[in-house]
Amino acid sequence: MRIDILSVLPEMIEGAIHSSILKRAQEKGLAEFHLHNLRDYSTDKHRRVDDYPFGGEAGMVMQIEPIDRVVSLLKSERDYDEVIFTTPDGEQFSQSLANELSLYRNIIILCGHYKGVDYRVREHLVTREVSIGDYVLTGGELAAAVIADAVVRVIPGVIGDEQSALSDSFQDNLLAPPVYTRPAEYKGWKVPDVLLSGHERKISEWRMEQSMERTQRLRPDLLKR
Amino acid sequence: MRIDILSVLPEMIEGAIHSSILKRAQEKGLAEFHLHNLRDYSTDKHRRVDDYPFGGEAGMVMQIEPIDRVVSLLKSERDYDEVIFTTPDGEQFSQSLANELSLYRNIIILCGHYKGVDYRVREHLVTREVSIGDYVLTGGELAAAVIADAVVRVIPGVIGDEQSALSDSFQDNLLAPPVYTRPAEYKGWKVPDVLLSGHERKISEWRMEQSMERTQRLRPDLLKR
Repeated sequence: MRIDILSVLPEMIEGAIHSSILKRAQEKGLAEFHLHNLRDYSTDKHRRVDDYPFGGEAGMVMQIEPIDRVVSLLKSERDYDEVIFTTPDGEQFSQSLANELSLYRNIIILCGHYKGVDYRVREHLVTREVSIGDYVLTGGELAAAVIADAVVRVIPGVIGDEQSALSDSFQDNLLAPPVYTRPAEYKGWKVPDVLLSGHERKISEWRMEQSMERTQRLRPDLLKR
Repeated sequence: MRIDILSVLPEMIEGAIHSSILKRAQEKGLAEFHLHNLRDYSTDKHRRVDDYPFGGEAGMVMQIEPIDRVVSLLKSERDYDEVIFTTPDGEQFSQSLANELSLYRNIIILCGHYKGVDYRVREHLVTREVSIGDYVLTGGELAAAVIADAVVRVIPGVIGDEQSALSDSFQDNLLAPPVYTRPAEYKGWKVPDVLLSGHERKISEWRMEQSMERTQRLRPDLLKR
């Protein structure tokens, strides 16, 4: 899978896409990431990519031209499944959307910045608008990194132990049960006896009970999906 | 405001917290960020901070000791309003929670990684569990950066033009209206006439209509809050 990220501030997420699981996915040849600085596609001598909004609102707006230029260039090189725009008013990103996107071959993620992008970008160039949550960020860069991380980690082979991803929260609409590791007692705080019992069936029953109990208490909405 | 972030992979978000608005907030003295590598608090000679889970599940679990050590050290130096753990089964992060946290003086954000943290950390050291959305990430690092970004940008004085933050999506439970900038026409795609009219009242009416229409169509749930 190939992910092209378009941004005015690529250095913000350079570290995120070149470390941890995303780095490993690239080394294994299962994913590649390309960060494009929109300023490289500006025709302005100061490499400007934003301008004042029409109608006199506060804030700056990202111009359509540099974005159109890089999107057209990329599309001339290969087919893209989606051109995603990260915006707080987009479709809510979820584990099922992450699973869906992980099946794609090529996607572009456009990061909004400043007050937003010229709306014509959203009408004519973008195919899908995605929000990572009901809050406003400085820019779409962190949202793009979040999407890339959630999507790439479910590509088969990316994380070493696939059992680990399958038992994550949300994959079966249940929250994960508590986990514990050494030491068995720390400052008087103990690991539940059952986990030390070596009794496989009891352990697995306890985990299911904990999952159900935690989901019912913390996220009853998940059980209705 | 001071934010201490505890992580096994600080390089993942180093770029994010030292660029853009977060950098500017630090330069203005309005916020400071401290990234702590949990491995620096390991007593293991290989600087290990994780171990196998009790009960034989897949994946590795972050140990309580290094986390307790750094949290205790930080708490001995100053009072903290919250010790936040980023986890997909936590309370949903939202703009109102961002606004609330922006009033705090000192917070710690603990980033989960691997399969999770020893549950005793969550029971005894953490005061608040926050999720940035219903999806699983490689680690809590990006979630911590998202929270830091959303919180710090609403601290008064951080973004230059405060009008800009106040007219963002969610601040009044309405999605923002479309924005446009030069050129007025691009490949035949035009900016709405009203925005070029110079007629202030009509422009502000059009914006309100667009906000309402977009909210009703895309996020009717916001209007019920």
